[in-house]
Amino acid sequence: MIRVTYLLETPGDPRAMAEKIAADQSTGTFTDLPAETDALRARHAARVEEVTLLEPLPQPSLPEGAGPVRRARATIAFSPDSIGGDIAALLTVTTGGLFAARGLTGMRVLDFDLTPDFAAHPGPQFGLEGSRRLTGVAEGPIIASIIKPSLGLTPDQTAEVVRTLCEAGVDFIKDDEKMMSPAYSPFEARVDAVMAVIRDHAQRTGKRVMYAFGLSSADPDVMMRRHDHVVARGGNAAVVNINSIGPGAMAFLRRRSALCLHAHRNGWDLLTRHPGLGFEFRAWQKIWRLLGVDQFQINGIGAKYWEGDDSFVRSFADVTTPIFSEADRALPVVCSGQWGGQAFQTWARTGGTLDLMYLGGGGIHGHPNGPAAGVRAIRHAWAAAGAGLTPAQAAADCPDLAASFQRWGMPAT
Amino acid sequence: MIRVTYLLETPGDPRAMAEKIAADQSTGTFTDLPAETDALRARHAARVEEVTLLEPLPQPSLPEGAGPVRRARATIAFSPDSIGGDIAALLTVTTGGLFAARGLTGMRVLDFDLTPDFAAHPGPQFGLEGSRRLTGVAEGPIIASIIKPSLGLTPDQTAEVVRTLCEAGVDFIKDDEKMMSPAYSPFEARVDAVMAVIRDHAQRTGKRVMYAFGLSSADPDVMMRRHDHVVARGGNAAVVNINSIGPGAMAFLRRRSALCLHAHRNGWDLLTRHPGLGFEFRAWQKIWRLLGVDQFQINGIGAKYWEGDDSFVRSFADVTTPIFSEADRALPVVCSGQWGGQAFQTWARTGGTLDLMYLGGGGIHGHPNGPAAGVRAIRHAWAAAGAGLTPAQAAADCPDLAASFQRWGMPAT
Repeated sequence: MIRVTYLLETPGDPRAMAEKIAADQSTGTFTDLPAETDALRARHAARVEEVTLLEPLPQPSLPEGAGPVRRARATIAFSPDSIGGDIAALLTVTTGGLFAARGLTGMRVLDFDLTPDFAAHPGPQFGLEGSRRLTGVAEGPIIASIIKPSLGLTPDQTAEVVRTLCEAGVDFIKDDEKMMSPAYSPFEARVDAVMAVIRDHAQRTGKRVMYAFGLSSADPDVMMRRHDHVVARGGNAAVVNINSIGPGAMAFLRRRSALCLHAHRNGWDLLTRHPGLGFEFRAWQKIWRLLGVDQFQINGIGAKYWEGDDSFVRSFADVTTPIFSEADRALPVVCSGQWGGQAFQTWARTGGTLDLMYLGGGGIHGHPNGPAAGVRAIRHAWAAAGAGLTPAQAAADCPDLAASFQRWGMPAT
Repeated sequence: MIRVTYLLETPGDPRAMAEKIAADQSTGTFTDLPAETDALRARHAARVEEVTLLEPLPQPSLPEGAGPVRRARATIAFSPDSIGGDIAALLTVTTGGLFAARGLTGMRVLDFDLTPDFAAHPGPQFGLEGSRRLTGVAEGPIIASIIKPSLGLTPDQTAEVVRTLCEAGVDFIKDDEKMMSPAYSPFEARVDAVMAVIRDHAQRTGKRVMYAFGLSSADPDVMMRRHDHVVARGGNAAVVNINSIGPGAMAFLRRRSALCLHAHRNGWDLLTRHPGLGFEFRAWQKIWRLLGVDQFQINGIGAKYWEGDDSFVRSFADVTTPIFSEADRALPVVCSGQWGGQAFQTWARTGGTLDLMYLGGGGIHGHPNGPAAGVRAIRHAWAAAGAGLTPAQAAADCPDLAASFQRWGMPAT
């Protein structure tokens, strides 16, 4: 059975609400029907397996009526006969009507427990190992940066930033997620200009920096043409705005892709920020890993957005926990307002691993001693964190890190 | 310029928040950068055009801090240079980071005002006129039904329900949105069984009922194989679970489609139900019409879901209001708990038009005198509503409608 765990909130009886959802999402409608026989229901109806009552809430999550409201965690089992291994079927059958149900004032999908049918999905093509192989970073975090300013640079100007970042010593660079194919930087021209720098740097130094190009388009045919152009120029990665293209386009791309797919989840916050509505990241990220995400952006400690540190720590565990096998783990991309100071807490709170990509934008471009110093500071911070040093100890023998602390503050430990 | 109108909510200054969003969604990041010059900002930064302060709210929409919070409607103009006519670019640039912004306690996209670049999208292939032509319904509502029970019927059992509905006199039948290709009713086998009945009915009566098959899959290649199978069997329509496949897969399908595409918007409620968060339907439906939706499900008066009548009335106006031309209007599909009694209010509140599809599931299958009586009752209700009669007048000369009133209640006028 496919088991889905929900957080349900209602002024009524949460158990009755779970039963209603199970019926609505399988065989029922608003009125009794002669053909909805007991035999049909027994075979195809979803079944409520467990309901755990939680503390009531003083205010409903949706502003529909007054509080308090009752809450429960409910697990409903769906017949795999109805869903098979298709993600569109999973979404429609187990969540499609959920958010429309009358009488619910909050509803959140906490987790999907999937059947092996879903293991037929391709999953990540590169993940951690492939990312290490392609970047040549055998150990330690893959140090990454992003083109800044996000928008407005021509291909040649972008290439100049790429040269600066290559010389600064990063392992990976990406387009800003808002950079796709604007009039002033058409995709193909940008690839040509950037890859010339990447190739040149590789020839001179032996280091091939991975560049992820923003190939997203709501037209999969356009996306594939962009993909092919990157491959033709010797590139090996792409930024994919997964919510803006949707699951089907992601599946289409992955099946044909020779590139390492770096997922930017912009738009996701709408689906998760209200704690009584939407999806937990644990549930949602499984879908995208099965569809083929190699590298998953998940914010970081002290992110510039709303998301708190605890949520980031859970996300890190989520994307690195196998669904069906080790091969379906994604590389966690720690990002948003990162400049190295967060390495200490990140290391301490994610199980002391160095298997991650660490992405600094402003933290590298905006370092007071320049981008190379920004990269040195970040590498030093991670080496020190991994060796169990404190930020103060780490800064003592690295003037660039000391300068970071002066610029952005002394990190908490 | 591409103009996007937002509803913003913050404990701080809504004008400052609008400026922050304009910066974050174009050239800015969390720290000042040397390359973010005034010249670059002047050309590429998004601009706040208008901010209208609204009444404060006592409680924030997101449970982050206490109320009251201030609210404003803000219009921000984005350079078409950055977005072109790509819907993935539109979503990422104008909404991607919005829901993540710190300090906002509510944010909703109210409308998109698009540039002619977006008119290059194919839009609906059939819409109202194509739907009328294919069903042979020259005037009046296209009367539609759905296979019930939603799940659990084999292809042969489905075909039997189709026969009953054809004989009952419907113009259109659809798979339940949860019916795609389950183990007990594989897509191709269901198409074969159903189309045999549709063809037979057409030969005997001259009436070709339109059947929309649920071809959704998160794999566009699978979806196209299903599409081709429907075409090969002489079918002319499909149900598309637009949120479960995403914009890219919809664009892919539309470009290759010979079928009339009937959009089911399951999952949409998560994006709109909280009035302080997400998207207004007015904004969101534009995207899907440009991508190619022909027939758009929008609930109805007295729907079985949370959505109120006023919202439905606005949706009806939205899908029938041209974006760039008359050709991009979708056929409104009035549905959810419909049985005919709502015809009077629907007619009165949507401008007295009969250009719609009216979809009854339980209201036809569950009619006390059988499905044919259910269809007769619905047709009579619409004829009466269009002639300006009251429900009581309408029931006086139609025993089947009188029976509906007895079963489901006397409609309000």
